[in-house]
Amino acid sequence: MIPAVRFGAAVGCRAAGRGKRCPVKRTVREVAAAIGAEVAGDGELELHAVAAPERAGPHDLIYLDSAKHAQRAQQSAARCVIAPAGIAMPGKTVLRAANAKLAFSRAAALLIERAPVAREIHPTAIIAPLAKVMPGAAIGPYAVIGEDAHIGEDTQIGAHCVIGAGCWIGQDCRLHPRVTLYNSVRIGNRVEIHAGAVLGADGFGYAFGDAAGDSYEKGRYTKFPQLGILEIGDDVEIGANTTIDRGSLDDTRIAEGVKLDNLVHVGHNVQIGAHTVIAAQTGISGSCTLGHHVILGGQAGLGEHCTIEDSAIAGGQSGILNGKTIRAGQTVWGTPARELDKFKVMFAWQARLPELLPRLEQRLKKLEEGAGE
Amino acid sequence: MIPAVRFGAAVGCRAAGRGKRCPVKRTVREVAAAIGAEVAGDGELELHAVAAPERAGPHDLIYLDSAKHAQRAQQSAARCVIAPAGIAMPGKTVLRAANAKLAFSRAAALLIERAPVAREIHPTAIIAPLAKVMPGAAIGPYAVIGEDAHIGEDTQIGAHCVIGAGCWIGQDCRLHPRVTLYNSVRIGNRVEIHAGAVLGADGFGYAFGDAAGDSYEKGRYTKFPQLGILEIGDDVEIGANTTIDRGSLDDTRIAEGVKLDNLVHVGHNVQIGAHTVIAAQTGISGSCTLGHHVILGGQAGLGEHCTIEDSAIAGGQSGILNGKTIRAGQTVWGTPARELDKFKVMFAWQARLPELLPRLEQRLKKLEEGAGE
Amino acid sequence: MIPAVRFGAAVGCRAAGRGKRCPVKRTVREVAAAIGAEVAGDGELELHAVAAPERAGPHDLIYLDSAKHAQRAQQSAARCVIAPAGIAMPGKTVLRAANAKLAFSRAAALLIERAPVAREIHPTAIIAPLAKVMPGAAIGPYAVIGEDAHIGEDTQIGAHCVIGAGCWIGQDCRLHPRVTLYNSVRIGNRVEIHAGAVLGADGFGYAFGDAAGDSYEKGRYTKFPQLGILEIGDDVEIGANTTIDRGSLDDTRIAEGVKLDNLVHVGHNVQIGAHTVIAAQTGISGSCTLGHHVILGGQAGLGEHCTIEDSAIAGGQSGILNGKTIRAGQTVWGTPARELDKFKVMFAWQARLPELLPRLEQRLKKLEEGAGE
Repeated sequence: MIPAVRFGAAVGCRAAGRGKRCPVKRTVREVAAAIGAEVAGDGELELHAVAAPERAGPHDLIYLDSAKHAQRAQQSAARCVIAPAGIAMPGKTVLRAANAKLAFSRAAALLIERAPVAREIHPTAIIAPLAKVMPGAAIGPYAVIGEDAHIGEDTQIGAHCVIGAGCWIGQDCRLHPRVTLYNSVRIGNRVEIHAGAVLGADGFGYAFGDAAGDSYEKGRYTKFPQLGILEIGDDVEIGANTTIDRGSLDDTRIAEGVKLDNLVHVGHNVQIGAHTVIAAQTGISGSCTLGHHVILGGQAGLGEHCTIEDSAIAGGQSGILNGKTIRAGQTVWGTPARELDKFKVMFAWQARLPELLPRLEQRLKKLEEGAGE
Repeated sequence: MIPAVRFGAAVGCRAAGRGKRCPVKRTVREVAAAIGAEVAGDGELELHAVAAPERAGPHDLIYLDSAKHAQRAQQSAARCVIAPAGIAMPGKTVLRAANAKLAFSRAAALLIERAPVAREIHPTAIIAPLAKVMPGAAIGPYAVIGEDAHIGEDTQIGAHCVIGAGCWIGQDCRLHPRVTLYNSVRIGNRVEIHAGAVLGADGFGYAFGDAAGDSYEKGRYTKFPQLGILEIGDDVEIGANTTIDRGSLDDTRIAEGVKLDNLVHVGHNVQIGAHTVIAAQTGISGSCTLGHHVILGGQAGLGEHCTIEDSAIAGGQSGILNGKTIRAGQTVWGTPARELDKFKVMFAWQARLPELLPRLEQRLKKLEEGAGE
Repeated sequence: MIPAVRFGAAVGCRAAGRGKRCPVKRTVREVAAAIGAEVAGDGELELHAVAAPERAGPHDLIYLDSAKHAQRAQQSAARCVIAPAGIAMPGKTVLRAANAKLAFSRAAALLIERAPVAREIHPTAIIAPLAKVMPGAAIGPYAVIGEDAHIGEDTQIGAHCVIGAGCWIGQDCRLHPRVTLYNSVRIGNRVEIHAGAVLGADGFGYAFGDAAGDSYEKGRYTKFPQLGILEIGDDVEIGANTTIDRGSLDDTRIAEGVKLDNLVHVGHNVQIGAHTVIAAQTGISGSCTLGHHVILGGQAGLGEHCTIEDSAIAGGQSGILNGKTIRAGQTVWGTPARELDKFKVMFAWQARLPELLPRLEQRLKKLEEGAGE
């Protein structure tokens, strides 16, 4: 675990205004201790930032995942590299970590102070009289905080966010500019929400019919009540312009650690289990249930009332029909989605059709001619 | 029809700030009269809200659609249930309605006052001198209303909305926070638009070529004029972060009663007929024409100049090619989309290929060997 | 090339507030000179605007692309028409241009003054002390400009835009309302960005694992640093609610003349070459490289690390797998995408399966029966 470290740089570091995040100088030894890596080399070397090998300066930390990238790392100007055991980096200080990418990500969190989304309670922020803003929270220009809303300790609300009445936002959250929460959305701790996301809008539910006997040609849609709430667990990240609807008569719930990319759609009453990851532009219809550690590729689509069990994977652009279940650990692809290996075999046969079928016909014809003799 | 009822609860009901909509107490008899249902049981029972059976208290109204859910309803704490004829609910007051879901939706509109999107003309709203705001309209904090815009009676414009010059918005509309209307968009009555929707942006139209003779490798795109307007009919609902472009030389038109889900894209010059429903993330390219009562599933895609006739249905992720017509009442699926039954049959044969083709070959081989003897 | 022309109409033209763009009167001769067309007819005729043939008045300019539309043009009230050589338009003044649509688009840019996105530096705009706003730039109500940002000459920033610290925006850009730029985004000249677009948000990158040895069932996702920037070239247009992520350790780059439609997603580290066009709702995963003059249809999806070479085309809803390359000039379609002609042949065989396979089986059976005799 990453120990709780107080960042040294003052809020307001000018570098953040010039396209650079605020660097926080640390020694290799300090970083190693924080991320639980062993040091081989100069533990007193100062680290200022992280970088890709080709862009790194002497005080930037780099990493490599596999021997394949050893040359890139070796040729880098960086003097310190995170690498798995067994990869030699002559002349460089090495931090040994089995999962080098993870160690690098943790080190980056220590070395790079993220630019604040808000630095203070801006005088133009409109905070309803009964809203509660906890100590350390910051609210950007023109943000609007509704009645009875709760903004947790050290949470940053960006410019132009609109937080509906009765919302509850935990500690250490980052809401980037222009996030909108409808009423009564509940957000955990350390949640990051990117610009333009809309949380808690009405689900897409209607009753169809009319007083004159439900003739389809004359019928119209009447809004079904959308009274449920939306709950978001701890450590969730939500991409830009993503939309998550509130429940209709039940609630919509996103468990801890879930990561949603940009432009994702989550319908009403959906339940998403912990540490599930959903790539960009995927759409999840109402009342779907996803387990934990599920992975959905980009532009996948789930019909209503689907069940995706724990650790299942759906490839990009997969289409899962209404009411279907994807079993735990299964990987599926295609529309309608089926087990990946079966899809591949089926697809391989499809691809052979233009060559195979004429040949089959020819052979048949020859036999028929033979039989006719 | 739902009679025009004045809600009893005052604007500003505190409950709205605690995750609950404002309840409006009514008797079963009053609700029955309003929705045209027959009462079997205690007509004087007070109803405070609507709920799912499992969440309902004694004064919540519930409904069931079919005998399948009779036990859920029977076990609910609710004392009043809407049900179709023929389903017994011993011990409960029953409102009889052929279309129970529709009746329930209408009852909900009576029992639950929706939280207002705006309550007043907020002092920070910027309203151009020649804009016209009708009596009863409310405009939220930091909204910007352009020159010559018209905001109809009792319409609510949420915080941070930007209404372009020359827009016309009818009565009783609800624009949630951060809706953007470009210039000259025309909106009917009782239209609800969810947060982040962008209406009337320029369509995606360019002329390609260059002065030196249109060599493709050197050519560039020049913006084609996007001068048309966008018209939205009465009773339309538009989802969060949906985008509807204005016309180029013609207009884009969405007829009455149309429902668009979140993240839908509607291109320039598109015409959508009345009571058509379009699920999330569907994209409609320029100059398509959709009839009335069309249904498009989620993530469907229509090429340019498609025609979808009245009451046609396209399944989720369907892809309809440029210029194609889907006939009235037809149901299609797949990419390229074709008649659903044909798709299913074709798909079933595809799925059999890995088992069928090797067997066919084997049989052929055997015959050939026999013939060769 | 279009000569630099100063528009005659004053900023603030009232017509813009009534659903009409400001017209700028010019003679046919002036327009012809500007767009490089030859005049046949009355060069002194005044042109006030452009229109579709059916909507045009006598002083509107119309165009036609091919003889197919000659009757529409002929019957129009317009007195002046742009047409390619060889199409007679008796009684009308004709501007001859090989590429009539392009000539019309250029003429429209002369005749129609686009409504300004902002007209002044609005007193409610919050501009950080060290931001630099160049002469002629306009900033709309409630826009927020971060520290050290640069807003170029004659650039218009719409209401509610949020421009992050350290951003650089060139000259003559138009940012429509509610565009959000995260820190350090760099934008060229004459770039147009539509409402709700989010530029420079964090990419979707995580390291997976946990301290206890990366057991999948217990693992969690840790944010991978997203420190790169986003660069947008000259003459780019970006659609409403589109999202373009910043780089992680590298940068995201969109070259000059690129056109992105609405609701497009561009992941981190993506490189897009000049004059590439991407239709609505297409998603481009991280680290893809697109050449120049590429065309991607709507709802196409690219996996990570794809390469789309110059002038390649991917049809609507195409799915290109991780790491794949589409060769220069190739046209692909389908998921997984393959060469268009191959796709069509394969698809034609698939469509024949329900008729073909039973017949093949029958013929086989007959032969087998014959062989068994």
